Amino acid sequence: MTISKDSPDVSVIEDRRLSCGVRLLVESNPSVKSAAISWWVPTGTMDDPDGDDADGLAVLCAGMLERGAGGLDSREFNDGLDRLGVIRNISVHDTSTRLSASLRNEELPSTLELLADMVLDPLMPEDGLDPVRSLCLQSIQGLVDQPPELASIRLNHLALPAPFNRSAYGSSQALESATIEDVRTAWRTRCLPEGSIIALAGGIDFDVAADILERRLSEWSGGSKEMPESRPRIGGDEHVEQSGSQVHVEMAFDAPPLCSSDELPFLVATRILGGGSSSRLFDHVREQQGLCYDVHAGYLRRRSGSLCTIGAGTTPERVSRTIESIYEEIDRFGSGGITQDEFDNVMVGLKTRLMMHGESMAARAAAIAADFHDRGTPRTLSQVAREIDELSHRAVDDLVRSHFNSKWASGVARVAVGPSTPFQPRS
Amino acid sequence: MTISKDSPDVSVIEDRRLSCGVRLLVESNPSVKSAAISWWVPTGTMDDPDGDDADGLAVLCAGMLERGAGGLDSREFNDGLDRLGVIRNISVHDTSTRLSASLRNEELPSTLELLADMVLDPLMPEDGLDPVRSLCLQSIQGLVDQPPELASIRLNHLALPAPFNRSAYGSSQALESATIEDVRTAWRTRCLPEGSIIALAGGIDFDVAADILERRLSEWSGGSKEMPESRPRIGGDEHVEQSGSQVHVEMAFDAPPLCSSDELPFLVATRILGGGSSSRLFDHVREQQGLCYDVHAGYLRRRSGSLCTIGAGTTPERVSRTIESIYEEIDRFGSGGITQDEFDNVMVGLKTRLMMHGESMAARAAAIAADFHDRGTPRTLSQVAREIDELSHRAVDDLVRSHFNSKWASGVARVAVGPSTPFQPRS
Repeated sequence: MTISKDSPDVSVIEDRRLSCGVRLLVESNPSVKSAAISWWVPTGTMDDPDGDDADGLAVLCAGMLERGAGGLDSREFNDGLDRLGVIRNISVHDTSTRLSASLRNEELPSTLELLADMVLDPLMPEDGLDPVRSLCLQSIQGLVDQPPELASIRLNHLALPAPFNRSAYGSSQALESATIEDVRTAWRTRCLPEGSIIALAGGIDFDVAADILERRLSEWSGGSKEMPESRPRIGGDEHVEQSGSQVHVEMAFDAPPLCSSDELPFLVATRILGGGSSSRLFDHVREQQGLCYDVHAGYLRRRSGSLCTIGAGTTPERVSRTIESIYEEIDRFGSGGITQDEFDNVMVGLKTRLMMHGESMAARAAAIAADFHDRGTPRTLSQVAREIDELSHRAVDDLVRSHFNSKWASGVARVAVGPSTPFQPRS
Repeated sequence: MTISKDSPDVSVIEDRRLSCGVRLLVESNPSVKSAAISWWVPTGTMDDPDGDDADGLAVLCAGMLERGAGGLDSREFNDGLDRLGVIRNISVHDTSTRLSASLRNEELPSTLELLADMVLDPLMPEDGLDPVRSLCLQSIQGLVDQPPELASIRLNHLALPAPFNRSAYGSSQALESATIEDVRTAWRTRCLPEGSIIALAGGIDFDVAADILERRLSEWSGGSKEMPESRPRIGGDEHVEQSGSQVHVEMAFDAPPLCSSDELPFLVATRILGGGSSSRLFDHVREQQGLCYDVHAGYLRRRSGSLCTIGAGTTPERVSRTIESIYEEIDRFGSGGITQDEFDNVMVGLKTRLMMHGESMAARAAAIAADFHDRGTPRTLSQVAREIDELSHRAVDDLVRSHFNSKWASGVARVAVGPSTPFQPRS
């Protein structure tokens, strides 16, 4: 099966560098009436000050973007978006702050105007800061009720290089001490056109969108800036002590970087190992032994570094046996390799998901922006399908046998959230 | 704006009663290459035995459906679905057990065969029961880490009539004592064609799907059965004591039944009151006062009864003030009514979501099955759009002023999950 042959209709991503430096990428799909926007501004938690508990401005900036813009106060501005029926979200990441929006395509021009106000001309009212701050602090407090999320945050802290290892929640101390001037200055100096990506997908006319944005963003200026330098990662084990009846464990291992020839084989390998209910880990650790209610492997790919992550949720009584069982499974995986069936099943799963993503405009806009950010160029569905089609069982099997050995399994970092830790001090 | 005019392409739901009694509903969309299946079997937690802690067979049945079928063991059967690239899920509800699947349309025939095996001829192997049981028990234990979910479960228990008020997790006691024969007998006697709904959406040929299912399901037999009778709801307040830094509150109020003329006006009213970041509650309680990190209102519509639910997550220090503030807002809502702007914004939001659902085959299949189950007939997107178009600001405003008064606000039931409860004993 080749998806490429089946989908001649959506195969072009139009691309223009606007005069202000923003990169506009558009995938038109005339068969839909919706439109999706994914706008990445090239600033995130990496730009927060160095030092323990010094990060927090990035998330405050994002919160304040929702508090009015373009001369409209918070209520008026959000009413404007509501009147257009725009479903939207702002999220903070290591190297980007992302606005995403879904809407009826006929509202695209007005929506782009409002989002441009939000990015270029946010009101950032002084009386909005305390509520935003309070919500950020409450989100941090709420993490005690989300052990898997908390474990992931701490794992990233240990296993990724600073300053790309920070939590998108910020630190309480920095959140508490920030002033409105800190936030305004941070956004003004960090929000730059160079490196910004605007990806659009759906029932969209490229020229119309390009003209609107060219005009609206023409005055957006500011030099480009260097990415901060990566510092060595911390590594090691951590126990976040927390009462409750469960332990959640997350472990990080080395993984091939973005755009390397091992990337796709490794993705397939991690899916066979721990991606869903037919995976090795799920079948052997959860289904056959009933050791945990959840176990999964993932492949985290960022420009700052890649990780294979394996996580499990279980009870304090079972956690040691769960982890032993995961290591046994990794061992068996590397020594025995993968079957043709396992390979075929994951491949068809990747292709099915790819096809479904092709039918979701929000997923397409996000993927196009991510590709450009991570790979320097967006990929059409056909291109991704071709990459998948060209992968062989042999390539994945070779990678699994060479990669998943006991040296690899000693890992980069591990985190346990719960009343006890299964990790012994390392020798 | 009328969506009905814009979307002439997807406007027919084909409908056939198969000879076994199953209702087949198909919405063909020739512009997509995916297909979605929503298969509702008319048995759920309502069929579990009466009595405290006696429910659990429904969820065990659902778990055992994934353990092999049609002569294939668990691994072989799930491999078969994986080879087809089928993304699937089984969920248990009060009156139904639902299989949902998303796939490439070319795999529809083979997928229907496998799902039919799952429903009609599950293996239910004895050695599969303990792992399934263990996972169910672990899911219950895991609820301590999900206060909002736990609060909803307890709220439904108090505010809906038995036996339609049960948790989809089952009770530990019943889960622990069930034998494999209990589970097999339960599924055999409960899994009936009459009342089953199979809804399909996507790039599908109705006749092909109907022929496959007519043939495959022709031997499926079993009488129809009456729905159990509703018993009076329990009502009242409950405190689920739990350590932690947060309190999650859920409150239930009366709401118009499904298919009543007040249904759509009430839906719009609850969205204005507490549906999203521009709602009254979100703006006044969260944004302006920073009292909680989450507050929302919903409209739960089931055949057994409808509820308006209002929930909030906050800290123990702020919970009393949060609830006071919610009641104040309800009071202001009922006495002041709604503005034209609020009405317009929610209407355009409903239409935007409707259009996006139209582009998701999984959402369409689920909506068609739900409509048939709840209303006795499925609705096309155009029909739903027309219902929305016909609603006036006046109708919603009248409903809000007559409905949201202090008598209504005394409510049906309330639940608090956390270290302390804000609820005083009622006089």
